[in-house]
Amino acid sequence: MMVKVGIINVTGYIGMELARILHQHPQVDVHSITGRSTAGQKLGEVLPHLADMNLTIEPELGEVTLVFSALPHKTSAEAVVAALERGIKVIDISADFRLREAKDYDKWYGFTHPVPQLLGEAVYGLVEFHRNQIASSRLVANPGCYPTSAILALAPAVKEGLIESDIIIDAKSGVSGAGRTLSLRTHFAEVNENVSAYALEGHRHLPEITQELGRLNPALALAVTFVPHLIPMSRGMLTTCYAKVNVGKGSVEEQKKKVLELYTEFYRDEPFVRVVDTPPQTKQTLGTNLCLIHPTIDPRTERLIVISCIDNLIKGGAGQAVQNMNLMLGLPERMGLEGSAVYP
Amino acid sequence: MMVKVGIINVTGYIGMELARILHQHPQVDVHSITGRSTAGQKLGEVLPHLADMNLTIEPELGEVTLVFSALPHKTSAEAVVAALERGIKVIDISADFRLREAKDYDKWYGFTHPVPQLLGEAVYGLVEFHRNQIASSRLVANPGCYPTSAILALAPAVKEGLIESDIIIDAKSGVSGAGRTLSLRTHFAEVNENVSAYALEGHRHLPEITQELGRLNPALALAVTFVPHLIPMSRGMLTTCYAKVNVGKGSVEEQKKKVLELYTEFYRDEPFVRVVDTPPQTKQTLGTNLCLIHPTIDPRTERLIVISCIDNLIKGGAGQAVQNMNLMLGLPERMGLEGSAVYP
Amino acid sequence: MMVKVGIINVTGYIGMELARILHQHPQVDVHSITGRSTAGQKLGEVLPHLADMNLTIEPELGEVTLVFSALPHKTSAEAVVAALERGIKVIDISADFRLREAKDYDKWYGFTHPVPQLLGEAVYGLVEFHRNQIASSRLVANPGCYPTSAILALAPAVKEGLIESDIIIDAKSGVSGAGRTLSLRTHFAEVNENVSAYALEGHRHLPEITQELGRLNPALALAVTFVPHLIPMSRGMLTTCYAKVNVGKGSVEEQKKKVLELYTEFYRDEPFVRVVDTPPQTKQTLGTNLCLIHPTIDPRTERLIVISCIDNLIKGGAGQAVQNMNLMLGLPERMGLEGSAVYP
Amino acid sequence: MMVKVGIINVTGYIGMELARILHQHPQVDVHSITGRSTAGQKLGEVLPHLADMNLTIEPELGEVTLVFSALPHKTSAEAVVAALERGIKVIDISADFRLREAKDYDKWYGFTHPVPQLLGEAVYGLVEFHRNQIASSRLVANPGCYPTSAILALAPAVKEGLIESDIIIDAKSGVSGAGRTLSLRTHFAEVNENVSAYALEGHRHLPEITQELGRLNPALALAVTFVPHLIPMSRGMLTTCYAKVNVGKGSVEEQKKKVLELYTEFYRDEPFVRVVDTPPQTKQTLGTNLCLIHPTIDPRTERLIVISCIDNLIKGGAGQAVQNMNLMLGLPERMGLEGSAVYP
Repeated sequence: MMVKVGIINVTGYIGMELARILHQHPQVDVHSITGRSTAGQKLGEVLPHLADMNLTIEPELGEVTLVFSALPHKTSAEAVVAALERGIKVIDISADFRLREAKDYDKWYGFTHPVPQLLGEAVYGLVEFHRNQIASSRLVANPGCYPTSAILALAPAVKEGLIESDIIIDAKSGVSGAGRTLSLRTHFAEVNENVSAYALEGHRHLPEITQELGRLNPALALAVTFVPHLIPMSRGMLTTCYAKVNVGKGSVEEQKKKVLELYTEFYRDEPFVRVVDTPPQTKQTLGTNLCLIHPTIDPRTERLIVISCIDNLIKGGAGQAVQNMNLMLGLPERMGLEGSAVYP
Repeated sequence: MMVKVGIINVTGYIGMELARILHQHPQVDVHSITGRSTAGQKLGEVLPHLADMNLTIEPELGEVTLVFSALPHKTSAEAVVAALERGIKVIDISADFRLREAKDYDKWYGFTHPVPQLLGEAVYGLVEFHRNQIASSRLVANPGCYPTSAILALAPAVKEGLIESDIIIDAKSGVSGAGRTLSLRTHFAEVNENVSAYALEGHRHLPEITQELGRLNPALALAVTFVPHLIPMSRGMLTTCYAKVNVGKGSVEEQKKKVLELYTEFYRDEPFVRVVDTPPQTKQTLGTNLCLIHPTIDPRTERLIVISCIDNLIKGGAGQAVQNMNLMLGLPERMGLEGSAVYP
Repeated sequence: MMVKVGIINVTGYIGMELARILHQHPQVDVHSITGRSTAGQKLGEVLPHLADMNLTIEPELGEVTLVFSALPHKTSAEAVVAALERGIKVIDISADFRLREAKDYDKWYGFTHPVPQLLGEAVYGLVEFHRNQIASSRLVANPGCYPTSAILALAPAVKEGLIESDIIIDAKSGVSGAGRTLSLRTHFAEVNENVSAYALEGHRHLPEITQELGRLNPALALAVTFVPHLIPMSRGMLTTCYAKVNVGKGSVEEQKKKVLELYTEFYRDEPFVRVVDTPPQTKQTLGTNLCLIHPTIDPRTERLIVISCIDNLIKGGAGQAVQNMNLMLGLPERMGLEGSAVYP
Repeated sequence: MMVKVGIINVTGYIGMELARILHQHPQVDVHSITGRSTAGQKLGEVLPHLADMNLTIEPELGEVTLVFSALPHKTSAEAVVAALERGIKVIDISADFRLREAKDYDKWYGFTHPVPQLLGEAVYGLVEFHRNQIASSRLVANPGCYPTSAILALAPAVKEGLIESDIIIDAKSGVSGAGRTLSLRTHFAEVNENVSAYALEGHRHLPEITQELGRLNPALALAVTFVPHLIPMSRGMLTTCYAKVNVGKGSVEEQKKKVLELYTEFYRDEPFVRVVDTPPQTKQTLGTNLCLIHPTIDPRTERLIVISCIDNLIKGGAGQAVQNMNLMLGLPERMGLEGSAVYP
C-alpha cells in the first residue's frame, strides 16, 4: 500500500530533486504536484528529465497524507497552515519554521511570522539530533544546506565540550544553492571561473546554526562567524570549521586520534554521516544523502579543523526531507536514499 | 635600447605567463628561453598561443641581463647560482630563496639547501614591503601565490597591531596553482565540479606567510592556521582571513569605517593593490597584476574578516615577477602590467 | 538467489560506474573486483565514494558467473579468453571484440588480434539491434560511447532508407570519455574553458559506426565523416548528425512530422531510447541509461538533422553493459537501471 | 592628439569589452559612455573590473568623433541614425545594418527596418573582405560572432570554387555569446555541465553567413545548414565546417597540402587570421582578436573539414569593432589589439 504524498512548488531545484527521489521510493506515490506559473502543464514539458513521471502540475494540492512545501519563505507558511488544517503532515523546505523565536523572522527575513504559535510545535528536521520528535511530529522544518553541513561538522565538538566558544565557519557552496530564480549573480558567465564571498553582514542561515549548536551545549556562549562563498560548480558544499580545542595534553597525533575516535563514536549509528580519516571532496557525495566529516588538529596551533561535505540539494535539501518523511511515515530511514555518489 | 632577459623552464604555467607578459613589455626583449624536455623545438610548437614570439627553446641560457628561473624547487637553486656567477640578475620563481632559515628547507621541502649563504642576500619579492631592497638586489625570491594573497590581506592589520595573534587563513585556489605536472588531483574529471581542502598537516607556503607577517610586527606571536582549498576553475585565488580585532570601542559601523580607512591609507600609493568597499571576486582580477582587498567587521562577533583576490598566475606569479624586474632594471614599476581584467 | 559477477580493472571510469550500478542491482552480487596497481587495497581507499561496498581489490578474478572486463584494448582480449575458458560469461568493455574483421585491429588499433576466431562469435552489445543474440551469447562486445550515440541517432533513417549515403557526424563529448589515464589534454587547466576537435585523420570509433550502420542497410554505400570534440564538462555526449533526406514531397512541416513519427515508431518499445520533439540536453541524461533523440528537418536545405544525448559513462558504457548483463542472465532488461537524471 | 570615442550601452558583454580594449588603446580616448538603467552611476560601481577608467555612465552620448552602438537590435538603428545626423562615425554592434535587404529584417528579426535607405551605405565590417570600404565609411555593421567564425573558415574554399554548394556549419559557442540578459538557458546550474543545440529552425546569424559567402562566389548556389550549440564555458567559439571538395585527383595527403597552402596564401597578409596545421583550440584565442583556421581533408570521404576558433567577444565582437575603428580613423589596423592569449 503506497502512501500518497505531494510537492508544493515542484519546479525549483529542491522541488525537482524531491520528485526524482520520491519517484524511486518503493513505498510512496507522488500523487499531487503544484506549481505557480506552470499549473496545467505536464511535468515533462517543464522538466524534461522527469518526463517518466507522467504527472500534471496542478494549481492546488490534491488528497495526500504528507506534503513537502518547497515555496519561498513567507509564502510557504501560508501553504503549511492550509495543509495542516486539512490534516496533512508537512515537511517545510523553506525557513518558515526553522527558528524558535518569532522575532527572528522580523530580524532576519523581514516579515512578521503569521503563525508564531506553530514555531514551538515544529521540529527542526536534522534527523541526527531530533529523530524521535520528528517521528511523532506533524510539522517538520527541513534545515538549510549551510546549517546541515555546519551543525553536523561541529556538533560532536560542541556537545562534548571539546572546543572553546569562538568558532569560524567558512563555507563553499555550488551555485544551485542560490536556487532557480534568475539573477546576475547566478548568470553563467558571471559566476563561472569565479569565486566570491557574500553576506558578510550576516547570512540568514546563521541563526539556525547558532540556535541548534546552542541547544547541544547551552553552557557554551558561542561566538560564530559564518562566511559563505559561491563556487563555480552546480552542486556540492564543503564547510571548513575552525575552533580552539581542548582534548588534553597529548601530542598532536594523540589529539588527532582522540578527536577522530570521538567523532566516529558520536556518529557510529548514523546511516548518512560518515566520519573519514582523509579530507573529503564534495564530489564523493554527489547524488547521495551522505555527509562526510573529517576532523583533525592543526599541528602548529593545535586548533580543531573540521571539514564536512554534502550534496547541497540532497542532504542539504531533498534527501534530508525524504529522510524526515520516512520517519514521519514509520518507514525505514534509509528507504529510497541508498546509492553511491555519481563520480566523476 | 631593449634589455635582454631570459626564462628558464618556459613551459610551466608561470613560465608561459612570463613569456606572454614580457612579449608585450616595451623595454625588454625575451632573448633566451630554455626548457628541459622541449629543447630544440619552436616555442609555438609547444605552446601554440605563443607562436607570435618566434623563439626556439634552448638547452642552455643565452646572454641576458636578467633571468627568471621557473624551475621546480631544489633544481632552481642550482640554476640560480649558475646565473649569478655569470653576473646575471635573477628572479627565482621557485621557493628556493624565499625562506631565511636554511633548516626550513630540510623541514618543509625535504632537501638540504645547497647555498645557504645566499639566503641572507636574497630579497623576498613582495614589492609592497621590500621595494628598495628589490631595486638594488641581484637575487629576488618571487613569493608564492598563497603568501601573496594572505600577506597583502593581513599586513595592515598585523603591522598596525589591529589584531590579536590568532589568525585563520582559508584560501581558495584555481587549479592552475597546482602547476602543469600531471596528477590525478588535477585530472579534469576528478577536480571539475568538486571542492576539497588539502595539506591540512601544513602547506609549504605557511612558513613564508608567518616569516613575512612576523617581520611586520615581531612583537606579535602569531598563531596562524592556513587551509588551502582547490576550486574548479583555471585561475584565481580568493583568501578569507579571520582574526580578533581591536579597533576601539565604537559601533560596528564605526569599526568597519575605521578598518577600511586604515587599509585604504596603508595601500594608498600602491599601483597594484586596491582596497574595495564591497566583497571582491576573483574574476575581477583575471589577467591583471591586481590584488583586491576588502576588510570588514563581523557585526556579531566583532571579528576582522579580510578577503583578498588575485590572479594566482599573475600577482601570484608572473606579474609580480615582472613588477620585481621593473624595479631591478630601473624601469617604471607598472610597465607592461597595465590593463583591466578579462571579464567575463 | 544473487548471481555472482566480477569486474576486471574496476578503477577506471567505466569500471567504477559498473561497481556503483551493480551495487544497487537487486539480483547480482559484485563478488570479485580486480585492479592492476591497486591489488590488495580496499575499494574504499582507492575510490572513497564506493567505501560502502566493502570490497577488496584482488590481483585475480574470483569465482563468478559473469565478468565485465574494463581493461584497455589488447590487454582485455587476453583476460576475456581466460574468463571464457573458465566458463564465465563475458562483457568486454574494451574495443577488442567490437569489429568483425581481424585486420581492422591491425589498421585501427595497431596490434594483431590474438583470437580472431572469437570475432565471429562475439555479439555487438547495442541491445536495440541485437537483443536476441545477446541473450544467448557468452561474449558481448560493449559498444563505444560515440558509436552508441551515433548509431542510435541514425539507425532509423539508415534502415528505412530515408537518407542518402553522405553522413556527417559531429560529436561533443565530456572529458571523462578520455578515461582516467593522465595526459596533458585531460589536465584540468588545459581543457577547462576550452573546446577542440580531435582525431581528424580518423577516430577509432569510426569503423564501429560504419560496420553497424552498414548492417542495417547493406545497399547504402555509406560515406561517413565523423569528428569528435572535447567539451569542458565531466560527463555527457551530444551528437549532431546531418544527411540528405528523402521523405517525400510534403512541406517542411510535413516532413518533420513524418520523420518524428518514423523515429517514434522505430523506438516505441525501447526502454532506454526516447524520441523527443524538442532539442535534448546532455544533462537530461546524466546518471541514467537513457538516449534522447531529436530528429528534425532543416527548413531551408531540407536536410535531416538528428541530435542524440547520452551519459557517456552509462548508456555509453557501464549502463549499457548492465543492460547487456540483464539479458545474458535472463533478468528484466531495466533492472538496476531505473531512475531519472540528476539535474541540475 | 587622442580621438574621442563613445560607447552606447556599455554594460553588456561586448560593451564592457570595448571599454577594456579602448582603455588601453594609445590613440583614442573613451570620452562618453551611456547606459540605460545605470545612467548616473560610476562605471566602476556597475563594472568593478573597469574602476580604473574613472568614467560616469551618461544618459546621452557626448561629443565624440566615432561611436560604438552596443544596443540590442531595432533600438540600435535609432541611436545610429541620431549619431550619424550629428556627424559622428558609427560602428553598430547590433545586427541592424548587417543585412542588405530590408525585408530580411521583417523575416528574421520581426520588425520593419526604420531606415532601409542606409542598408546600402552600411559596410559589413569583416575587415578581411571589405577593408577599403570600411576605411572610407561612416557606418560599419560589425559582424555577428557566428558569421565571423564561419565566413573566415569557408571564404577561401568558396571564393576559389574549391567546394560544392552543400555546406554544414556546426558551431560551438561559450555562454557569453548569449549576452548578459537573464534567462533560464544562461542560468549557471542549467547550462553548466551541459551541451545543447538550439535554433534548429534557423538562427538569425544564418542570413549574414549566406549573404557574405554568396558575395564571394555568386555562381555557387549555396545550401547552408547551420546549427549552433551552447558550451559550458564563458568565452570561445569553435566552428566546424563540412563540404564536398574538389581539389584535383591527388592523394589525400596531396589534397591536404594543397588546401593548406591555398588557405595560407589566402590569408597571408592578414594580421588577425592564422592558418594552422594542427587542430586549434578556443583557449588559444582567449583575450585576443585572432581567428585560428585549420583546413583538412577527411581521408575516407575526401570531404573538406575546416575548423575555426575565435574569442566570441573579441574577434567575434569588440576586437573586430576596434579593428574597424582603426581603419575608419586612419590608424594602424593592429593598434590596441596586440597581445597573446591568456592561457590557461
